Amino acid sequence: MFIRFITTGGTIDKVYFDALSQFEVGDSPVRQILTEALVEIDYDIVPLLQKDSLEISAADRQKIHDYVASDDAERFVITHGTDTMPETAEILSDLPGRTIVLTGALTPARFRTTDAVFNIGMAVAAVQAASPGVYIAMSGQVFRGDEVRKNRDENRFESTL
Amino acid sequence: MFIRFITTGGTIDKVYFDALSQFEVGDSPVRQILTEALVEIDYDIVPLLQKDSLEISAADRQKIHDYVASDDAERFVITHGTDTMPETAEILSDLPGRTIVLTGALTPARFRTTDAVFNIGMAVAAVQAASPGVYIAMSGQVFRGDEVRKNRDENRFESTL
Amino acid sequence: MFIRFITTGGTIDKVYFDALSQFEVGDSPVRQILTEALVEIDYDIVPLLQKDSLEISAADRQKIHDYVASDDAERFVITHGTDTMPETAEILSDLPGRTIVLTGALTPARFRTTDAVFNIGMAVAAVQAASPGVYIAMSGQVFRGDEVRKNRDENRFESTL
Amino acid sequence: MFIRFITTGGTIDKVYFDALSQFEVGDSPVRQILTEALVEIDYDIVPLLQKDSLEISAADRQKIHDYVASDDAERFVITHGTDTMPETAEILSDLPGRTIVLTGALTPARFRTTDAVFNIGMAVAAVQAASPGVYIAMSGQVFRGDEVRKNRDENRFESTL
Repeated sequence: MFIRFITTGGTIDKVYFDALSQFEVGDSPVRQILTEALVEIDYDIVPLLQKDSLEISAADRQKIHDYVASDDAERFVITHGTDTMPETAEILSDLPGRTIVLTGALTPARFRTTDAVFNIGMAVAAVQAASPGVYIAMSGQVFRGDEVRKNRDENRFESTL
Repeated sequence: MFIRFITTGGTIDKVYFDALSQFEVGDSPVRQILTEALVEIDYDIVPLLQKDSLEISAADRQKIHDYVASDDAERFVITHGTDTMPETAEILSDLPGRTIVLTGALTPARFRTTDAVFNIGMAVAAVQAASPGVYIAMSGQVFRGDEVRKNRDENRFESTL
Repeated sequence: MFIRFITTGGTIDKVYFDALSQFEVGDSPVRQILTEALVEIDYDIVPLLQKDSLEISAADRQKIHDYVASDDAERFVITHGTDTMPETAEILSDLPGRTIVLTGALTPARFRTTDAVFNIGMAVAAVQAASPGVYIAMSGQVFRGDEVRKNRDENRFESTL
Repeated sequence: MFIRFITTGGTIDKVYFDALSQFEVGDSPVRQILTEALVEIDYDIVPLLQKDSLEISAADRQKIHDYVASDDAERFVITHGTDTMPETAEILSDLPGRTIVLTGALTPARFRTTDAVFNIGMAVAAVQAASPGVYIAMSGQVFRGDEVRKNRDENRFESTL
């Protein structure tokens, strides 16, 4: 069992900088989350991007795609901003033989109350239990990547079926 | 998508009582964990037992079995003390057509640092993504219920294969 | 023992709004902090402003001054953004017979790791133990209001003596 | 400004050991609390005892007394179990020229919800702001050491006046 984690930014990675009174994408909290969860599987974390998902360009998405395509791992968890997560899921859908789960957070992982830890837990289980394909694990649900959208008004993910 | 949660006690539910200077099984934190995780699926939580798993008797296990057998849900997440989690998994293995995931925590959910939130996240995803059967989600891994043991010395779950 | 809390905004009150991908001043966490701290004293919380301290105007400061001047309480804890906390301390220095402690946070109270809880604890103790006057409780220290500045480069409060 | 912290055990230091299913006094969280609170003062932490306060003997109390008597610091914060905190305050009352604040927690510091951080904040401020003497900072209040008791039924500290 080996899982490749790829971090790309988004709310899950947001950090507050008092010196600037700003709240920006910072280092990913994935390693700390896995350590605190007493995870014993083999894994590696690749910080590929540090962007809000609305700023992820077509070239960025291609970069994610090419990284996964050239990697010999079979299981990938990709943390990603929520606004364009389905778009990134779509571009990864032509990669056979891999189980890819995208997840992120609606509230920053560094908050005392956050969905980040739960969502990473969902992604880690889904990437082991699901058949090859692309999935999005958010709002307590494991969606197929092509059957989900973010409902911004309600601040949740929901099925398009 | 409907998930029945059944809580039975164990470390995940432990509460500290200063008046007694004791640390005992209390109310389950499952509802709060699901609320903070912004879970949007339908679910129900049944508090069936409040016991350390070493105190769960054969009659208690039969009670869990009979509850699941008589329930019309298809997906069950059972929170349970870690020491005898595999024994309870075994007794549930004769119930066809259901996906059952047992999970718990090595550190109480009320601690600032705990594996409980991540583990519940894993269980929620596994119960959706896995085919019918009995599973244990602990230590970052989704095990088949008959292929896992707790290594008490190392304080982790590991495969028996 | 009665303490009047006045909240004015600042980092201590910052909330993240995913819908906007913004981080803005929200409701004050002071009540929750006092509740979790098992505080048994009598107190009241007045939300007077919701502003970053760089946005606090002379009129705002006068409003704080006038509120304290017209109130019959003797002990005040004022939560405030850190950048102009000394300016507000100065304007309050002409109010005799009151013990006034300003505090805030360098990291939002809603973060998992924050100085907010500790700082509110400091302020609550200082307002009881100190003689009448104006104080700033930050960076682990209780400063006289006219003997302290924020060192923005080092992100801490320090004595001007 | 220098503060000597002395840790003696009690609920504030409690740790959960899953291997034993027990909850015992462990390493003190004081250093982590001060670090997260962005404290900039000079301090030192001396782990003198690791005991529930009901197990603190007359000899233990004498040991605390002698440590403080022989130390050249002027400000002391002593973390202590809550049940016999007033007894330890009493034995320290014959040490002139020092400001000594005892504090602790009704809920372990490692819990997600705890009074420990707030109480340490209170103690750090009280030891700076109060005149020499012995104090207890608990339940949101700074008490004189000889004017306070723990009300075990209500699980709080209250004045004896």
